[in-house]
Amino acid sequence: MKTQYRLVFSAVAGMLALNVSAAELKPEDAIKLRKANYNTLSWNMNKIKDVLDNEMDFDAKKVAAASNVIAAIANSGMGALYIPGSEKSIGDMKTRAKPEIFTDGEGVKAVAVKFIQTANKLQTAAASGDKVAVAQAFKKVGASCKACHDKYRAKK
Amino acid sequence: MKTQYRLVFSAVAGMLALNVSAAELKPEDAIKLRKANYNTLSWNMNKIKDVLDNEMDFDAKKVAAASNVIAAIANSGMGALYIPGSEKSIGDMKTRAKPEIFTDGEGVKAVAVKFIQTANKLQTAAASGDKVAVAQAFKKVGASCKACHDKYRAKK
Repeated sequence: MKTQYRLVFSAVAGMLALNVSAAELKPEDAIKLRKANYNTLSWNMNKIKDVLDNEMDFDAKKVAAASNVIAAIANSGMGALYIPGSEKSIGDMKTRAKPEIFTDGEGVKAVAVKFIQTANKLQTAAASGDKVAVAQAFKKVGASCKACHDKYRAKK
Repeated sequence: MKTQYRLVFSAVAGMLALNVSAAELKPEDAIKLRKANYNTLSWNMNKIKDVLDNEMDFDAKKVAAASNVIAAIANSGMGALYIPGSEKSIGDMKTRAKPEIFTDGEGVKAVAVKFIQTANKLQTAAASGDKVAVAQAFKKVGASCKACHDKYRAKK
C-alpha cells in the first residue's frame, strides 16, 4: 500500500518533471516552501512591473536580474513541493491550493510548461535589454501566472 | 533625524547595488519577502546537499537548476528589503535580523559581496557538471551563508 502510494506520487512528480526526494520533506514545510517560491516570484514580477510602469529610464540591469530569478525558479522543479499531505492548510500554515492541483496531472503540466516557456522567453528578452520585447514577454508570464491562479488557487 | 536615517539606508542600499523603490514596500511585507527569498535559497541549497550526500549518480541537471536559483537570488538586490521599520518583528511577522544589519554598512557589504561571488562560482561549477568542482563551490556558498547568520541573525 505504501509502495503503491509512492508509485502514484512518483508518477505525478514525473509528469511535473521533478526530481526531489519528497520523503524528507514534511507537508507543512512543503506548503511553506511553495509560498516562499511564489512570494519570491511575485517580488521579482513586481520589480519588472515597476520598471515598465513608472521609470523614465529603462533599468535593463534590474529587469535582467529579476527575470533571472523568475526563470530560475520556473525551472527549479516546484512541483516537487506538492506532496501528499500538503493538500490543505496545516494549522497556521495556510495554503490556497485547490484539490485539483493534486489530481489534474495533464492540466497542471500544461500550466507548468507554459510558465517555464514564458519565463525563459522573458529572460531572453531581458538579456537583450529591449524594453518593448520585455513588455511583451512580461505580459505573457503574467498571463501564465493568472491561468494557474484561476484554475488552481482558491479565492481569498 | 528621519532624513538622516534615510540617508544611511540609501548609503547601505547603494553599497549593495540596489535599485528598488523601497517607499512602496510595507515593513511587514519586506520581512515576509526576506524570509521568502531565504527559504527559497535554503530549499535549493538542500537539493544540492542531497545530491552531494546521498545520490549514487550525480544529478547535474538538478544541481544546475538549483544553482541558477541561488545565483539569481544572490544577484537580485535583496538588500532593498532591509527598509526602515523592518528592524523588528511586526506582530506575527517575525524577523531574526539583528540590529547590526541595519547599521553595519561595511560589514554587510562584505558578506553580501562574498555571497554573490560564491553563488556565481557555484553556478559556473554546476554548469560544468563537475561533481568535485560543485562540492568545493557549494562549501564556499555554505560558508558565506553561515558567516552572515553568525554575524547578523539572532539565535532561535
